[in-house]
Amino acid sequence: MASGKVLARVSIALDDRGYDIAIGTGLLGDAATWQQAPKGTSAMIVTNDVVAPLYLAQLQAALAPRYAQVHTVVLPDGEAHKDWTTLNRVFDALLGQAADRKAVLYALGGGVVGDMTGFAAACYMRGVPFVQVPTTLLAQVDSSVGGKTAINHPLGKNMIGAFYQPGLVVCDLEVLRTLPARELSAGLAEVIKYGPIADVGLLDWVEANMGPLRALDGAALAHAVQRSCEIKAQVVGADEREAGLRAILNFGHTFGHAIEAGMGYGAWLHGEAVGCGMVMAAHLSQRLGGVDAAFVERLTRIVAAAGLPTRAPVLDEADNAGRYLSLMQVDKKAEAGEIRYIVIDEPGKASLRTAPEAVVREVIDHCCSAAVA
Amino acid sequence: MASGKVLARVSIALDDRGYDIAIGTGLLGDAATWQQAPKGTSAMIVTNDVVAPLYLAQLQAALAPRYAQVHTVVLPDGEAHKDWTTLNRVFDALLGQAADRKAVLYALGGGVVGDMTGFAAACYMRGVPFVQVPTTLLAQVDSSVGGKTAINHPLGKNMIGAFYQPGLVVCDLEVLRTLPARELSAGLAEVIKYGPIADVGLLDWVEANMGPLRALDGAALAHAVQRSCEIKAQVVGADEREAGLRAILNFGHTFGHAIEAGMGYGAWLHGEAVGCGMVMAAHLSQRLGGVDAAFVERLTRIVAAAGLPTRAPVLDEADNAGRYLSLMQVDKKAEAGEIRYIVIDEPGKASLRTAPEAVVREVIDHCCSAAVA
Repeated sequence: MASGKVLARVSIALDDRGYDIAIGTGLLGDAATWQQAPKGTSAMIVTNDVVAPLYLAQLQAALAPRYAQVHTVVLPDGEAHKDWTTLNRVFDALLGQAADRKAVLYALGGGVVGDMTGFAAACYMRGVPFVQVPTTLLAQVDSSVGGKTAINHPLGKNMIGAFYQPGLVVCDLEVLRTLPARELSAGLAEVIKYGPIADVGLLDWVEANMGPLRALDGAALAHAVQRSCEIKAQVVGADEREAGLRAILNFGHTFGHAIEAGMGYGAWLHGEAVGCGMVMAAHLSQRLGGVDAAFVERLTRIVAAAGLPTRAPVLDEADNAGRYLSLMQVDKKAEAGEIRYIVIDEPGKASLRTAPEAVVREVIDHCCSAAVA
Repeated sequence: MASGKVLARVSIALDDRGYDIAIGTGLLGDAATWQQAPKGTSAMIVTNDVVAPLYLAQLQAALAPRYAQVHTVVLPDGEAHKDWTTLNRVFDALLGQAADRKAVLYALGGGVVGDMTGFAAACYMRGVPFVQVPTTLLAQVDSSVGGKTAINHPLGKNMIGAFYQPGLVVCDLEVLRTLPARELSAGLAEVIKYGPIADVGLLDWVEANMGPLRALDGAALAHAVQRSCEIKAQVVGADEREAGLRAILNFGHTFGHAIEAGMGYGAWLHGEAVGCGMVMAAHLSQRLGGVDAAFVERLTRIVAAAGLPTRAPVLDEADNAGRYLSLMQVDKKAEAGEIRYIVIDEPGKASLRTAPEAVVREVIDHCCSAAVA
């Protein structure tokens, strides 16, 4: 059995539903890691067919001392499967094993597995505990923290879900060694994100450490994951159900969701769409007076250095801006059909605002043109 | 426009999510009723194809002053449709109308519509407000209060759901005039239920007033609905998420769910299964020493007087008790495969307990035999 090493710990305080994030190496396969996981009569590990061959047996063995039974269910990989049909396989597995209300669900995988497992846990018998074991950088720095769970609907991403908090999050940095480079870049998009909206110091640090980060340097990754989780924890702690402040975590996501929906889910990775979306949101912020051209250029350069696209895709040859706008209208932040954007008010500070449609059209036209690349 | 009359009001106190239950006549079609409903950009009335021709236009007109838009979605009637496919029609309708997070859902119908609308409201964009407008006695005295929402899974009833509180419940007694007699009886099962578990005085009152109740006497109905909601509110207020006490509201439901699942959902009405389930649970309570034979006889007589079945159906000619037991094992109250029953400890007081399998088998054999009818 592996011996894990905890490098950092972040505590999320949420009334009576607080939880810990353990960040380190070799944690997944170490039974000691799971001593602080929720107790239960049985565990059900939910994973996908890419992660299962790599880490499922290891986790199952490490959980064996903690639960009388450790069951597993392996879902098809990918955002395209983040739907009811796939979610229902989790319910089938739980009911097939006669899992009761004292079952604990484990999400072993990236954001899709985490979102679906969390939503399954929220709904199964009206709520059972669950644990996040994120295996992608994106999930470690963003989606496994904060309690947002959901599945997609053909008419919109993450439209059906719940706010439901995990009992524990374990970020094992060693699993990132098997992550494709493209997915590592996608994760860096969310790390970059925290800079413009909350911490210019982190943006400086990311800019200076992009090399070590992309080379999977352990200390650099641990710092990036820790700071990202700390910032997210702070924002979520102040506004769990996204009444206001929490929305700033969606910086780059309004444009990003339109890209994902317009290209078809899965064509671009979520983090790629967010990377490009941040460039678009930065341009919008500049036009609304929050940042200057130099900041937009710098952010664009950092996004590119992370290996992410900075030029927005054309979604409709005939009416591209119109297509973007209509896709953004189903965004959950929209109210009465009015699209709301996360805008940088000044570097390190952002807010949720509406914007004149003409200005948004200019931004879309500009960011979809070759000049930006 | 009708002029409504509020006969009683029950307040449910649940931290920051308390809400009112208004009980009266002519409330549904009176715009004044809805002044205290949650504000929003639009309303979506969810109903079924039996209730829609009777009350949909009336409610839609009464809501018009309160919301800029009032949309509707009409689902097929019945427990058999309390599934994901039908629920998804609500999401399709919401997304088709570009309903945002400030949309308010209205459940106009019985328990099935209420459970599905509540679950849709809990999940749509991770939660929008909803209002219960129960049109059956069962929904008025039980399912519209307490925040339990769910859909069925082929392997178990109400297995997928959420605890999610409405913003308002409006019980219009006049709509009960169009309720089939069989459904009125089914509702009376849940009124009877509150006696043995919480209030012997209510059981005396129901016994004495069965005539007026079945004849739809306004004052009798108002009292039955009010007392039922008060008792339920008290129990739910003490234990919203069913950690313990709340389970007593499931008196008669463990056996009842087995009957519903074993017969196929919809063959017996939920209230009919609960009526018969209470007789079975009373017999179990007697064998465990909580009540005497006279009490069991009396309760059986009251259930029969309400027009409900008191003889349990044979679910399997070869191994009837075994079939009951295996169906009860997927009950949400079961833990580690051990079935737990709501047992009357003394008239007016109940608790969640396990029972020796041999005793449960005796009860099943006895209640399925002709002698009980």
